[in-house]
Amino acid sequence: MTALSINAERLLGRIRELGQIGRDEDARLVRLAASDADKAGRDAFVAWIGDAGLEVAVDRIGNIFGIWKDGANAGRAPILLGSHIDTVINAGIYDGCYGVLSGLEVIETLKAAGYTPARPIAVAAFTNEEGVRYAPDMMGSLVFAGGLSVEAALATVGTDGTVLGAELERIGYAGPEEPSFLKPHAYVELHIEQGPVLEREGVSIGAVENLQGISWQRVTVDGDANHAGTTPMSMRRDAGHAAACVVTFLRDCARASNTPTVATVGCMSFEPNAINVIPSRATFTVDLRDPDEQRLQAAEAALAAYLKELAIAEEVTISVERLARFEPVTFDRKIVELVEAAARKRGLASKRMTSGAGHDAQMIARIAPSAMIFVPSLGGVSHNPREHTPDADLVAGANILLDVVTCLTAQ
Amino acid sequence: MTALSINAERLLGRIRELGQIGRDEDARLVRLAASDADKAGRDAFVAWIGDAGLEVAVDRIGNIFGIWKDGANAGRAPILLGSHIDTVINAGIYDGCYGVLSGLEVIETLKAAGYTPARPIAVAAFTNEEGVRYAPDMMGSLVFAGGLSVEAALATVGTDGTVLGAELERIGYAGPEEPSFLKPHAYVELHIEQGPVLEREGVSIGAVENLQGISWQRVTVDGDANHAGTTPMSMRRDAGHAAACVVTFLRDCARASNTPTVATVGCMSFEPNAINVIPSRATFTVDLRDPDEQRLQAAEAALAAYLKELAIAEEVTISVERLARFEPVTFDRKIVELVEAAARKRGLASKRMTSGAGHDAQMIARIAPSAMIFVPSLGGVSHNPREHTPDADLVAGANILLDVVTCLTAQ
Repeated sequence: MTALSINAERLLGRIRELGQIGRDEDARLVRLAASDADKAGRDAFVAWIGDAGLEVAVDRIGNIFGIWKDGANAGRAPILLGSHIDTVINAGIYDGCYGVLSGLEVIETLKAAGYTPARPIAVAAFTNEEGVRYAPDMMGSLVFAGGLSVEAALATVGTDGTVLGAELERIGYAGPEEPSFLKPHAYVELHIEQGPVLEREGVSIGAVENLQGISWQRVTVDGDANHAGTTPMSMRRDAGHAAACVVTFLRDCARASNTPTVATVGCMSFEPNAINVIPSRATFTVDLRDPDEQRLQAAEAALAAYLKELAIAEEVTISVERLARFEPVTFDRKIVELVEAAARKRGLASKRMTSGAGHDAQMIARIAPSAMIFVPSLGGVSHNPREHTPDADLVAGANILLDVVTCLTAQ
Repeated sequence: MTALSINAERLLGRIRELGQIGRDEDARLVRLAASDADKAGRDAFVAWIGDAGLEVAVDRIGNIFGIWKDGANAGRAPILLGSHIDTVINAGIYDGCYGVLSGLEVIETLKAAGYTPARPIAVAAFTNEEGVRYAPDMMGSLVFAGGLSVEAALATVGTDGTVLGAELERIGYAGPEEPSFLKPHAYVELHIEQGPVLEREGVSIGAVENLQGISWQRVTVDGDANHAGTTPMSMRRDAGHAAACVVTFLRDCARASNTPTVATVGCMSFEPNAINVIPSRATFTVDLRDPDEQRLQAAEAALAAYLKELAIAEEVTISVERLARFEPVTFDRKIVELVEAAARKRGLASKRMTSGAGHDAQMIARIAPSAMIFVPSLGGVSHNPREHTPDADLVAGANILLDVVTCLTAQ
């Protein structure tokens, strides 16, 4: 089977075709979960599943499955491939769609080659991975993995006031299957990196061994609004200055620690936000991530200790609100090794790496051995029309997925 | 004359009465320049000038003067007292009004006591000191001092689209006098400190010897928006972090310099301002003040040099826009000494100090020896309904003004 390769033209053609579905009046790609645009994307995917001669199944949360099984393997747990086809606002064409269409491509390639897998192979497009219209993100895979009840998920009210369950009914994707109808033997998700590492290091294949834990907090610093001209430096309780100290502290810590910890202050606002008034309040967010739970906890503890010191030193009041917290996920070592072996065989450089972003794979990892394969994102750009991966890398990644699936279904 | 004192009840009563004029539907004090509320305040002041038997004059920019002269001194340049009675939105009752009404009180006290000054004494309420509705602030005194043509000032378009000249006509305060009609021999302005120093140090009287120079700049840092999870710390061009470095740099400089330089970052905004996106842009303001022009220039130069280094070190682009620049003003040494001597005689503690805020006195200092007297502001609070100065301090300040004027008009 080593000589087998996917049909590059078919895969790239479908990625581009799906990327044209759901353009708004400004030609922006917007396929928010359970919208009319999402329906159009889903319809295209379901049609392709049918063209490939696979069985289509839709579960109650709207996850779509294309299943290839035969009389000999129908009783065994399938190898599941997949990702999502919903998008952010003004998205690129690769995020999610690449993994879904590559999963389908791998099955079609194997089927056309007369391969007889020892297990069924299925491809999934999970509902609402992006979480733009309905929170939380990765909802379809979370429900599929039993982490959230289907009833609670369907009752979610969106940012536009709609209810997810009603919208799924409306677009015809409130399926009959319980999300637990399919129990994967293993799960493999192919995805663009959405970060700059593979491109910078000239590596084609990322063998993703884990996924960072995420800690989101909102910090509010309260000081005193006073006149910028008449208040001596020594008499200030400057909330903006204290906030700036936290920003530089986080960066210095993350850089000094020689660990993969990343720390980001993405949101910042000052009150009253006037040029000649010392800020009475600064509000900002802290995004901490680490693939190791203990290091993530250590980073959180270091921040908490610093905020305590800072509040005393600057005579400000600091309060912290937790916005989100996910533990790191460790992917299946054996599948990661299969990815590395496949890359080696095809003469491609590979690198063990951490996923910095959240993915459906982190949810499926709760119920089945899982791993991910990354391909380079030029400039690390994602969630943006400039998101781009060269065709050669797209094809290479899909071929690695083909090889890994072949191994996983050999017996 | 040393036993003479002002009529505390009359002064305090007028401050409170004027403080009730121009309340909006939420009971906030709002007398923006040339508004109906400002007209009501002006009318009250003009009536009090009349009650005191003074001559009323209004110049073309709407500055109001109450002039006390007699046949013997009419040919000599007057001693001018004053401040402003326009306010910010949701103002306190003391800022400006205290100086205007104390000037009137001093004249009435001297007049009632049968004092015969060697020079005329006049009190002025300058138009649009606050600059909330029409820019620039301190406009009436700037025009009076010849720093801006009356035509240019009258043509100013306000934040509400109105034209100042038309509004002054409408409220009946487009006077006939050229702003140069009155040439002061000296100018003394009594004002609340609007800062915390006098209260903290337990001093009643500030002998204001200079007024800080002001440098306002807007700084824009451009980096790269990237995913907070997938972008290693070493590959970031984080505009928010660079902005935070500037905030801490400015504070560290101002604190380390052992000079009265003050530095404030009052406005701050991040783009795209999303929790999981590294800021691509940070925009913030820098307010630098110092009573010494060379030190102010040094602070500006230090900031410029730091921004240059930072742009290289952080691989960000930094641009700077100058928003305002005023040189420091040195007040008249002799008048400052008169203030100190008067405080000593009345057994009041005094302190030479710098005005951190801008005042009409800085404009009049261009054409006449000028100085200011400060009284404590509780908590340093101003431009706020919580603005407060105890009655005893208000009365003490007005008595110091009385004594200084007595000295200045003795010969």
